[in-house]
Amino acid sequence: MRYFLLLTALLVTAATADEGMWQPHQLPDLSDRLQQLGLEIDAQNLTALDKFPMNAVVSLGGCSASFVSPQGLVVTNHHCVYGSVQYNSSPENNLLVEGFLARRLEEEIPAAPGSSVYVTEAVTEVTAATLAGITDSTPGIDRYRIIETNRKALIADCEATGVHRCSVSSFHQGLEYFLLKQLEIKDIRLVYAPATSIGKYGGDIDNWQWPRHTGDFGFYRAYVDVDGRPAEFSEDNIPYQPASFLEVSAKGVEEGDFVMGVGYPGSTNRYRTSSEIENEFTWFYPQARQFREDLMRIIDENSAPGSQARIAYESTLASLSNYAKNYQSMVESYQHSDFVNRRRQEESNLAAWIESDSSRAQQYSSAVIQLQDLIESDHATRERDLVSSYMSYATLPNTAERLYRLAIEKQKPDAEREPGYQQRDLSRFRQSMQRISRRYDKQVDKAMLSYLLGRYAELPEQYRSNAVDSFYGISDRFDQGQVEQIIEDSYAQSTLDDEATRLAWMEKSQEEFENSSDPLIRYAVASYDEKMLLERSDKELRGRFQQWRPRYMEAVIAYNRSLDRPIYADANSSLRVTFGQVRGNQPKDGLVNQPFTTLQGIAGKNTGLDPFNAPAKQLDLIRQRQYGRYALPSLGSVPVNYLTTLDITGGNSGTATMNGKAQLVGLLFDGVYESIIGDWDFDDDKNRAISVDSRYMLWVMEYMDGASNLLDEMVIVD
Amino acid sequence: MRYFLLLTALLVTAATADEGMWQPHQLPDLSDRLQQLGLEIDAQNLTALDKFPMNAVVSLGGCSASFVSPQGLVVTNHHCVYGSVQYNSSPENNLLVEGFLARRLEEEIPAAPGSSVYVTEAVTEVTAATLAGITDSTPGIDRYRIIETNRKALIADCEATGVHRCSVSSFHQGLEYFLLKQLEIKDIRLVYAPATSIGKYGGDIDNWQWPRHTGDFGFYRAYVDVDGRPAEFSEDNIPYQPASFLEVSAKGVEEGDFVMGVGYPGSTNRYRTSSEIENEFTWFYPQARQFREDLMRIIDENSAPGSQARIAYESTLASLSNYAKNYQSMVESYQHSDFVNRRRQEESNLAAWIESDSSRAQQYSSAVIQLQDLIESDHATRERDLVSSYMSYATLPNTAERLYRLAIEKQKPDAEREPGYQQRDLSRFRQSMQRISRRYDKQVDKAMLSYLLGRYAELPEQYRSNAVDSFYGISDRFDQGQVEQIIEDSYAQSTLDDEATRLAWMEKSQEEFENSSDPLIRYAVASYDEKMLLERSDKELRGRFQQWRPRYMEAVIAYNRSLDRPIYADANSSLRVTFGQVRGNQPKDGLVNQPFTTLQGIAGKNTGLDPFNAPAKQLDLIRQRQYGRYALPSLGSVPVNYLTTLDITGGNSGTATMNGKAQLVGLLFDGVYESIIGDWDFDDDKNRAISVDSRYMLWVMEYMDGASNLLDEMVIVD
Repeated sequence: MRYFLLLTALLVTAATADEGMWQPHQLPDLSDRLQQLGLEIDAQNLTALDKFPMNAVVSLGGCSASFVSPQGLVVTNHHCVYGSVQYNSSPENNLLVEGFLARRLEEEIPAAPGSSVYVTEAVTEVTAATLAGITDSTPGIDRYRIIETNRKALIADCEATGVHRCSVSSFHQGLEYFLLKQLEIKDIRLVYAPATSIGKYGGDIDNWQWPRHTGDFGFYRAYVDVDGRPAEFSEDNIPYQPASFLEVSAKGVEEGDFVMGVGYPGSTNRYRTSSEIENEFTWFYPQARQFREDLMRIIDENSAPGSQARIAYESTLASLSNYAKNYQSMVESYQHSDFVNRRRQEESNLAAWIESDSSRAQQYSSAVIQLQDLIESDHATRERDLVSSYMSYATLPNTAERLYRLAIEKQKPDAEREPGYQQRDLSRFRQSMQRISRRYDKQVDKAMLSYLLGRYAELPEQYRSNAVDSFYGISDRFDQGQVEQIIEDSYAQSTLDDEATRLAWMEKSQEEFENSSDPLIRYAVASYDEKMLLERSDKELRGRFQQWRPRYMEAVIAYNRSLDRPIYADANSSLRVTFGQVRGNQPKDGLVNQPFTTLQGIAGKNTGLDPFNAPAKQLDLIRQRQYGRYALPSLGSVPVNYLTTLDITGGNSGTATMNGKAQLVGLLFDGVYESIIGDWDFDDDKNRAISVDSRYMLWVMEYMDGASNLLDEMVIVD
Repeated sequence: MRYFLLLTALLVTAATADEGMWQPHQLPDLSDRLQQLGLEIDAQNLTALDKFPMNAVVSLGGCSASFVSPQGLVVTNHHCVYGSVQYNSSPENNLLVEGFLARRLEEEIPAAPGSSVYVTEAVTEVTAATLAGITDSTPGIDRYRIIETNRKALIADCEATGVHRCSVSSFHQGLEYFLLKQLEIKDIRLVYAPATSIGKYGGDIDNWQWPRHTGDFGFYRAYVDVDGRPAEFSEDNIPYQPASFLEVSAKGVEEGDFVMGVGYPGSTNRYRTSSEIENEFTWFYPQARQFREDLMRIIDENSAPGSQARIAYESTLASLSNYAKNYQSMVESYQHSDFVNRRRQEESNLAAWIESDSSRAQQYSSAVIQLQDLIESDHATRERDLVSSYMSYATLPNTAERLYRLAIEKQKPDAEREPGYQQRDLSRFRQSMQRISRRYDKQVDKAMLSYLLGRYAELPEQYRSNAVDSFYGISDRFDQGQVEQIIEDSYAQSTLDDEATRLAWMEKSQEEFENSSDPLIRYAVASYDEKMLLERSDKELRGRFQQWRPRYMEAVIAYNRSLDRPIYADANSSLRVTFGQVRGNQPKDGLVNQPFTTLQGIAGKNTGLDPFNAPAKQLDLIRQRQYGRYALPSLGSVPVNYLTTLDITGGNSGTATMNGKAQLVGLLFDGVYESIIGDWDFDDDKNRAISVDSRYMLWVMEYMDGASNLLDEMVIVD
């Protein structure tokens, strides 16, 4: 299954130029280079998670962020606080349109349920503990379960404090494991978000594009109880006092300046095999893009712009669109590149190196062969796995399945439950059940389910589920009308669209589910056994990958070490450092991306229609050349966004772009279109990350929104 | 009516920077500047139409071109010979796909019917003769007819040689008239066109875009009879020997180099009033774009790609698409500009200048008021006029109307006939009747007619025609099904889709038309009287414009002269000179267009799918860096296309881009997207013309197509 695919083996992609998402402990090895490039603080500081600037950097779980005041003020991207703005919006009080600014602490409003700030306190290697009990002959399913059990034990121990969130992350495809210990601050409040016409200026049209003019910044504040400990929301809570915070630069950067980003990149695939690459780019991405575009069309057709239904799906739409465009770019870039051929060449270089020494051959040859076999097994079921992965877009049936699974898992001792259903997960589970109330519309959901079942019905019979076929009356002759009638009836009779009902089901027993007359619950019960069989065979496959990928990766690292090339691990949502400089590029023959955009470009793009509908006040200020202290003299205007060579990916959103003094000079929020394939194949000439300039952020705060309380609270330096 | 709209009054748009489409006789005044910029030949030479380089430049009627050998070899754009390539193509021998090269004179094939080469021999001012017999009190309809009669007499006199094509062109909106005398060479043959995958690389997607990689060049040869006189096609004809021809530069240009273009720009609107501008950009362009997109969709839905039907409509599609994109750009640029406000300011400056002097006020005040009244009258019927102008896309009914009109006009003495139906027009008329055989498909035509009648039926009753309503059964309640049945029946019973039948109708009498049972002929007869009434009232309006626009333009010129600003006339398909330099620009905040594209960009854009399907051989040559003598060292590759500041418009296609020695260094073929509005409002920073580089042309001829016969025939210089 796609979601369970483990990563695999690089080859010669050496970390040259500005490529590299470095673990903090690797940085001292690079310190000469960092200082030469412009780092002014001691590189040694970047290794210590309890020192400035590392302890000013936090995760929001999916986004990165930074403390920018001693009172727990957190700055991140507008699109990272978007869910909270949406959560607090209504047609009568549409914060998405108006923006939001709390001028005093009391005006700050709770972020969307599930929002937390995570402060990484420790990263400890736990490879031996994670693999304890495994031998070379341990079968796949056992290997999978042992690793999972060991991980859960490590996590449970780590989280015994009651205020930490811990995880065991695989590095280099399972060659190493690290325990990440994060303080979880749960009372998060929305402080400030500019209007969407600033924070999302250019919208989906400009997404992944340069030139860019997006004011992609917003502010949260972290609250703790009066004793300074993380706690659920309470009016008595007080602002969290971080150990350090970033100063914000009003001077900003110029072309060629050193910059670095410290954040939480989610996932890259820089070390996969050529057959995985080929499958992904020639099959998966085109297919998945189609799914996404179809789902977007269905949402569009079933919800009027501006309606409650459309507001509910704004963030789903944004995510669908974001990755549809991402996948399209992947395919285009792949077609114009020699990526897979280079990787094939690297693989044959690796093979030759392995075979040139008999002890190496004994150590690594079988890993190459075994891994290839596993990949082929995995690809054999790709159609089914793809359909299955998109099924969760049908919220109501998916909710029924999750609730029933919870009832079953709850019967087990906590340590034996499936991750996601343990005690530690229940608060998030509950929040996700609540969130549905704001992100669901019956008509849209039914239409999406109808579409998804149509795609499911195209699968060969061996890949379909008896229970699903039987519930929806699907056979090799698919009758859309009949399926839609069944959907219509099930939704009409189900009460899962009621929040209290969903929360009540969280407490019910397996037996109560089995006796329920709610059609969607009955569906979840009926389809459960087949799902579990599939899950078991998938875990078996994952276990076998866990045996061979690390061995293969070991060979790759050894080979690169023999060539004196340092290797960084694929992104895995753990804290990383990337460094580079402010620089434009040539995206195409005949065209140059300049490093900065300016206020004038906002006026130039403006059509008055969303997403190019800058506020009238902003256009006036631009016409009047009201720049204050924020202009870059060489531009003759206030810089809005800029390009850097930083190596980032999804999850880096909100990462502070820092100068050599570790002052905040911007916030990373996107990459250019041509760098999307960088998740697989970093190209020094094409990869460019986009930051919103700290000068533009301060300019908007001062001139547009009058956020003087926040400007006073932060330490702004020249 | 739109097509009859005369042009109107500029105001302060002075000719600064590289703006200006200069009449040759204006150039001596600019000669200091020209020499300073890099003109190496005597500017005086550019005034003499019988001297090099002016007599090497020719018109193709719609495109510009140049002689490039002593044997009548003519170079122009691929898209200017495209109709001839299409004309000679069939599914079995698709020259559009394969390209065409005659290696010997005998292999050269006739161009599409109607193709001619026009050599301008004289341009003589005839203002007095054109306006002879008109006084201030002549009514509009009489004024219109007197001017038309005078023009026809001047033309008839000029064409008495039997080998010339003459026209009387209005300059400065009727303030001046010039008689243009052109030798018409009618035996034109296709010599060479590269494959469409080179000549139209990038297709409609890249149209109006930069970066560009189009090999937009092709070759004709002009033939005359053995006595050297123009004659219809004959195997005995011999190549025409032009008085001079251009050398072709293999050295080409570099960034910043002086360039000039001598050609036949079709039409600009640099001197219109603010109310005309507002109407055009906020009403006409959006509406007309919709028409074009709808017609494209209809052609697309009713002809399979690659089918005979689709081949027949390729050039119609290209033209529809070209202007749909053009209009879209117009609207976008307008929305982002202060054009109309600037023009309003200019108008009030002009008004103040007029009113500040009582004799000026007496001379010009009424022109301002009268012109505004006329413009409002004209706009009152804009919906009807727009529908009416698109009706001619329905080929068969339009053919019936034209044939019936011919039968009526033929009864008049030649000098009294409507232009287009005189003796001098009949050969073109016949060719247009023949051309239908290759550019018509019954199913497509019916579908277009059905659409157009739907649009027609939306007009208020007062703007509809009784005859049309009655023939198609249209009332305020429109029944598409019924209309389609009538169309179905008419087309089934009409024989106008047969070429011989159409040609036979050219010879028939009015009575034969009136007795015909062909439904479309009957339709033409029935609708004739109402059409003539409309035409008469339109001519009345035109006559009144002819009275007031010249007076208004006189005021504009006098005003600009008072500010020491030279004024050039709007383009009107007469010979003009534009000069400037090779230079990129900044199309948008944050983005730079470099002046050159390279061979590598072709490979970079290539997808293997039309229109990005470069020949495999070309991609191989690029990979091998096979540049020969054609590389530009500063680029490290062969330049493909380049940007200049030349001031061009439609009709300039095929214009030689010349260096300071008047050697051919490229061929103008397009402008960048942001310069489309330049037809109205020239912006020095945004306007850029695109040329195909002579080095790329020679490279393709030498390495791709082995056109050694042509390379030997031309004079190629370093």
